[in-house]
Amino acid sequence: MPLQLQSSHITDSFWSHYRELVRTEMIPYQWDVLNDKADIVIEKERNDDTIPSEKSHAIENFKIAAGLKKGHHYGWVFQDSDVYKWLEAVAYSLSIHPDTQLQELADGVIDLIGLAQEQDGYLNTYFSIEEPERRFKKLAESHELYCAGHFIEAAVAYYEATHNEKALTIACRLADCIDAHFGKEEGKIRGYDGHEEIELALTKLYNLTGEQRYLELSLYFLYERGTDPTFFARQRAEDKGTKAVIEGMSHRQLKYYQAHLPILEQETAEGHAVRLVYLCAAMADAAYLANDQAMLEACRRLWNNMVSKRMYITGGIGSTVDGEAFTTDYDLPNDTMYCETCASIGLIFFAFNMLKNEAKAQYADVLERALYNTAIGGMALDGKHFFYVNPLEVRPDSSLHDPGKSHVKVTRPAWFGCACCPPNLARLLTSLHKYVYTVHPQQRAVYTNLYVTGTAKFELDNQSFQLQQNSELPWEGNVAFEVHADQPVAFTLALRIPYWSGEPALTVNGEAVPVTVQEGFVLLDRTWQTGDIIKLTLPMDIRQYSAHPLVRSDWGKLAIGRGPLIYCAEQEDNGAYLHLIRVQPHQQATYRFDSELLGGVGTIEWTAERQQIKAEWDHVLYSSVATESYVPHTLKLIPYYSWANRTPGEMQVWLHKA
Amino acid sequence: MPLQLQSSHITDSFWSHYRELVRTEMIPYQWDVLNDKADIVIEKERNDDTIPSEKSHAIENFKIAAGLKKGHHYGWVFQDSDVYKWLEAVAYSLSIHPDTQLQELADGVIDLIGLAQEQDGYLNTYFSIEEPERRFKKLAESHELYCAGHFIEAAVAYYEATHNEKALTIACRLADCIDAHFGKEEGKIRGYDGHEEIELALTKLYNLTGEQRYLELSLYFLYERGTDPTFFARQRAEDKGTKAVIEGMSHRQLKYYQAHLPILEQETAEGHAVRLVYLCAAMADAAYLANDQAMLEACRRLWNNMVSKRMYITGGIGSTVDGEAFTTDYDLPNDTMYCETCASIGLIFFAFNMLKNEAKAQYADVLERALYNTAIGGMALDGKHFFYVNPLEVRPDSSLHDPGKSHVKVTRPAWFGCACCPPNLARLLTSLHKYVYTVHPQQRAVYTNLYVTGTAKFELDNQSFQLQQNSELPWEGNVAFEVHADQPVAFTLALRIPYWSGEPALTVNGEAVPVTVQEGFVLLDRTWQTGDIIKLTLPMDIRQYSAHPLVRSDWGKLAIGRGPLIYCAEQEDNGAYLHLIRVQPHQQATYRFDSELLGGVGTIEWTAERQQIKAEWDHVLYSSVATESYVPHTLKLIPYYSWANRTPGEMQVWLHKA
Repeated sequence: MPLQLQSSHITDSFWSHYRELVRTEMIPYQWDVLNDKADIVIEKERNDDTIPSEKSHAIENFKIAAGLKKGHHYGWVFQDSDVYKWLEAVAYSLSIHPDTQLQELADGVIDLIGLAQEQDGYLNTYFSIEEPERRFKKLAESHELYCAGHFIEAAVAYYEATHNEKALTIACRLADCIDAHFGKEEGKIRGYDGHEEIELALTKLYNLTGEQRYLELSLYFLYERGTDPTFFARQRAEDKGTKAVIEGMSHRQLKYYQAHLPILEQETAEGHAVRLVYLCAAMADAAYLANDQAMLEACRRLWNNMVSKRMYITGGIGSTVDGEAFTTDYDLPNDTMYCETCASIGLIFFAFNMLKNEAKAQYADVLERALYNTAIGGMALDGKHFFYVNPLEVRPDSSLHDPGKSHVKVTRPAWFGCACCPPNLARLLTSLHKYVYTVHPQQRAVYTNLYVTGTAKFELDNQSFQLQQNSELPWEGNVAFEVHADQPVAFTLALRIPYWSGEPALTVNGEAVPVTVQEGFVLLDRTWQTGDIIKLTLPMDIRQYSAHPLVRSDWGKLAIGRGPLIYCAEQEDNGAYLHLIRVQPHQQATYRFDSELLGGVGTIEWTAERQQIKAEWDHVLYSSVATESYVPHTLKLIPYYSWANRTPGEMQVWLHKA
Repeated sequence: MPLQLQSSHITDSFWSHYRELVRTEMIPYQWDVLNDKADIVIEKERNDDTIPSEKSHAIENFKIAAGLKKGHHYGWVFQDSDVYKWLEAVAYSLSIHPDTQLQELADGVIDLIGLAQEQDGYLNTYFSIEEPERRFKKLAESHELYCAGHFIEAAVAYYEATHNEKALTIACRLADCIDAHFGKEEGKIRGYDGHEEIELALTKLYNLTGEQRYLELSLYFLYERGTDPTFFARQRAEDKGTKAVIEGMSHRQLKYYQAHLPILEQETAEGHAVRLVYLCAAMADAAYLANDQAMLEACRRLWNNMVSKRMYITGGIGSTVDGEAFTTDYDLPNDTMYCETCASIGLIFFAFNMLKNEAKAQYADVLERALYNTAIGGMALDGKHFFYVNPLEVRPDSSLHDPGKSHVKVTRPAWFGCACCPPNLARLLTSLHKYVYTVHPQQRAVYTNLYVTGTAKFELDNQSFQLQQNSELPWEGNVAFEVHADQPVAFTLALRIPYWSGEPALTVNGEAVPVTVQEGFVLLDRTWQTGDIIKLTLPMDIRQYSAHPLVRSDWGKLAIGRGPLIYCAEQEDNGAYLHLIRVQPHQQATYRFDSELLGGVGTIEWTAERQQIKAEWDHVLYSSVATESYVPHTLKLIPYYSWANRTPGEMQVWLHKA
């Protein structure tokens, strides 16, 4: 039997905190939201009258579709996916922390979903209740396959956690229904959903069931995309319905949906950022499963464009609110961007699937960047408040008075009418153990992607072994592994040397080992025995980052990082008008862990200076005679993920350089 | 007879060029637009399907309203105002340059307007043709009084130019109709138009006719504004019409219309920038005519807020495209702003009316700033292409790919569906002679606001005298005045010492006179005789301006000015990626007039440096090890108003400071 990862468990204190919040706060809270419990406050993510958000109504929609109640569908056309994402998070949570009561609740929801599924396997409460005749007729906006994909993902996770087959059966019937309607064969729809998701769900379903049709259907959707630029327009023209499925979406260009070109011809990351990374995650998984080199090459192209020209230092993507989309190379404004939490989560999916294809640390570097900064920054320390939009620079008065920044919230709202980010975070955090290692069986190698305390169990040639990882990240770069194996076992342990590390030190059983880095990994190829101890020290220097000179918004500025964390300045620590502070590059900075602050964070203090606003500026807006004067200022920085957990105020990642 | 300005003529070569373009290009071109001549290309100012802009149809609307043709109204609800602004520009043009054919054409248009006027004096083609029952019922959006104001302004100008009474009669009937419908009396409408304009038109009509009712009606509209915050909402609720008068306007807040507070309580410049400055222009004129000190004080407050916290260095106003509006203090982004040409023209109206109230050079300084930079920057050197939006920083790829900058055009389009700016410019340029002097009769003083070559005729105690001004502006600061008077005449000649001047030198008949500045003016109080020569030298140093430190967008940057002109860098002279260039403050710069360039402009060259993009940045977006390197770069600057007249490319006013 080739090398396999059997199981992975996280016991890391940093991450367990988040995973506990999901279990104890988010899952119950989200359940209340889905059921319209009275005291739930739902805030709109934008001031837009087209957004339905008075209540969720999501469970109610299923009851109506199941015939248990009378009434109308309420909410977004993709409202069902909120239930599915909750279910997926529940599945992962049960796999970490069994809970009979929660499992019974989830079983009941699955029964309800089963009742709402139609005879032929079709499943979508909006179309079943309101417009069955419009099924699959408006795919640019309908999100039917998007919702289906989320159910399939949930069903796969639920089966893996509980071995309950009911959800999986519903999922296979649904996939079969889709397979019956879509494809190149005569009479089938030659099209795809406006929001990618079914593609990555089908690869997961194939992985679990081994049913080749599901992989082929995923490949069909991927390769069909963008081949016929008239598909969405034709569907719109043929659609006899009068109700808009989603208001205000019909003007979107094909790029928005990544439907402007066949996927192998797409050179740049375009359009809605979440859609793009979901597409890429599916492409990378399909390329791996089907050993499709052309598709892998397309993935590399899109990856390179995105991470080397269109990604924020926090791992955020999406430079504009309009379409929540990419704009153009090096266009990375810090105060008007979107940087949706879900987009960074999708980027993590993409990176992880690339790691299956090729053992290059750059994918894990980006995965780690997005995870430790934008993803967990999307959530308040209390686990109950969430950002959609993750700015790198905020001024409360601009958010209030500049309509171009009204989407940039200064505090995390309690919930959103369009509830995609919080449950997406929940499922990422509860499945985080899956991201720690990638095995490459041909090389008999275990690649370590993330340094997170926990235990993983592997099997190789019918022998099992364990790796116990102890990590001090994100605060210190000390990592140790202990091998547990009944008999000696020969495999390669690959350890990532992150981009942020100083000169690393490595010992095996106390003996220094030279650190030779290949594609960002040190490979330790040995026959390992129980009790073998590997110690890796990754010095966490405080680093001053510059952006590529063509990133106009960051020109003349620098950002501070330590380990995987990017830091930021908040008004609470530094006073108002953060832009008046400038830092001397290469000046000494000091790091200190403050267990009292923000649940315990490392802080950085730096000798900076702050411009004084002199009296000569009274009533003067422009001056050719004014002089500048500065006073010393001790700049205090906190990890970006922990911002906006105190008094609302300014925040800034990129700092003016003196 | 107290001191009066009898007439003013401009012969200045800089301005005559523009005035000739209006006469020979804009007026005929605009006439073709108004009449839907076949070869006219109308571009939309924004990608917005709600904007009607296939054709103007403006004259056609009048023919239909007049009963000469059958058909429907087409275009904006305020389409009539295009005809009125054309007529006003024609009036001024005729006053400068008599033209029988043009006058006959205009007489014919006035006859047509007269036919379109209803029995009771009401005049508005949209409501007359389409929805007479909705007259005055939706004032937030209807622009009925706005259009009326533009007709009244045109009629006043036309009477002054031609002494033709027909237009004036229509105007008075229209004003009487409005007077009959609006006011505090029982049965009248206690409201006002959503777009200010009638207020300033009525003061002009009062000024010409002496009819006190018109001044009182203007004061009524001004003081009524913002007193009842429910007025617009009540009209909307009571309106039985189903058609939107203007799509997508109903969500605007009261601030947009300056209707959030009574005018005496408004402390800051808020809302739609053109509306605000039209309001202020009316307030300043009404304060002057009614000697209303409370209103003057309100004007000062709004002025001070605007010019010391919310105005671009180019005299542009309006920091956001959303609502074409002000945002908040010191919020002056250079690449997403609106800075509408019309808003700067309105600022000029406001400044000029403040000069009637009080002889303070700051008003003329701002007038000059807006005139020489944003106003004429709104027009191409060919007189046929126009900007609505006047950015201070442009990158073509951002305008193309960032929806938040799609309103920022890289080249001036030929015309716009909403044709407010070009005719507004036409009337400003053809009436520019009116702005050169302001007389203050009580002080027997002639205040010189602008240095523009030309002749002005004054009367004082039944004696007339002339001032012949010769100015080398905007290229050199040499100005001379020669007095012509039959008999010696005692008056004060006040000369403005602009903010941009070096140490000025002043002689009268060759004898040096000490320059003592009061509120920005030197006062020469003498008995003047024919042949007296006053020479003023205003050294035009190249000036490096900084913005107030709280202007975040300009922090660490400087802008260059010389005389009244603000300069900018264009890609054509400096290559792409202008943000890579940085300038050393206080470095020597050289000025040279280039008669071959852009119709003849002064250029500035400056030793700067340009960042090299080194190979270490290949495929790298963020780096903690990259170093910066610069090479010398001779930065070439041209006057801001002349940008975008060559190959489309980047432009930047604010430059990075080394």
